[in-house]
Amino acid sequence: MRLALSAAREAAAAGEVPVGAVVTLAGEVMATSANAPRALNDPTAHAEMLAIRAAAEVLGRERLEDCDLWVTLEPCAMCAGAISHARIARLYYGASDAKGGAVEHGPRFFAQPTCHHRPEVYAGIGAGAAGAMLREFFAARR
Amino acid sequence: MRLALSAAREAAAAGEVPVGAVVTLAGEVMATSANAPRALNDPTAHAEMLAIRAAAEVLGRERLEDCDLWVTLEPCAMCAGAISHARIARLYYGASDAKGGAVEHGPRFFAQPTCHHRPEVYAGIGAGAAGAMLREFFAARR
Repeated sequence: MRLALSAAREAAAAGEVPVGAVVTLAGEVMATSANAPRALNDPTAHAEMLAIRAAAEVLGRERLEDCDLWVTLEPCAMCAGAISHARIARLYYGASDAKGGAVEHGPRFFAQPTCHHRPEVYAGIGAGAAGAMLREFFAARR
Repeated sequence: MRLALSAAREAAAAGEVPVGAVVTLAGEVMATSANAPRALNDPTAHAEMLAIRAAAEVLGRERLEDCDLWVTLEPCAMCAGAISHARIARLYYGASDAKGGAVEHGPRFFAQPTCHHRPEVYAGIGAGAAGAMLREFFAARR
């Protein structure tokens, strides 16, 4: 999660909402990504999406059933869907997102009957640092 | 929708689940994509995602608030989330997807309080052809 937090810090420095994500396989880092929708002109370029796509490319396969995803913020519906499609084994996330989260808020996607793969979910890992970074980012923009 | 159906046909020919998507701006085609998670080793490579990303790249911006999305199948949670992030104005889709859809099934994402942009939704456009293609594809694989 330290790596994901450091990617989130890079996102903030680039003027993006500070979220970072890492995909690991057996404890080894496969991909590290920072949130980058503005820089990439890509509304789908959340940190989780970029990390999943990069890990799938590195591994040369579309399913990451032996991989874990670490992300500093509760995933949104798009990212929760991607996590499920990718068959991620374990999801570790930092801060909760009452406004846009889709794991413990809103659609609670992994609890839906239309969700065909549910990762093990561990919430609140590094939540203090992740939340502080987000609050600071949005406070500076008000 | 004819273009989206033709992209879906290409997906089927490539051994992918037959779904196609088109992004239009003022009636002009910005991007046409076929579902391609296997070919691209990318679990996020649904037709809608590829079309949204391609249109955003063509237009050089991350928001497509003046664009419409045409897709042959009801979008899943991942794609519904992306449609919302991209600020797509109107969503036209073909066949309903009781198993994985997230518009009229499961999370019903656009009706969630955590959904911050809802497109106008028009369902059932070309549903006959889209559904027949999907049934044929899965029947051949049984």
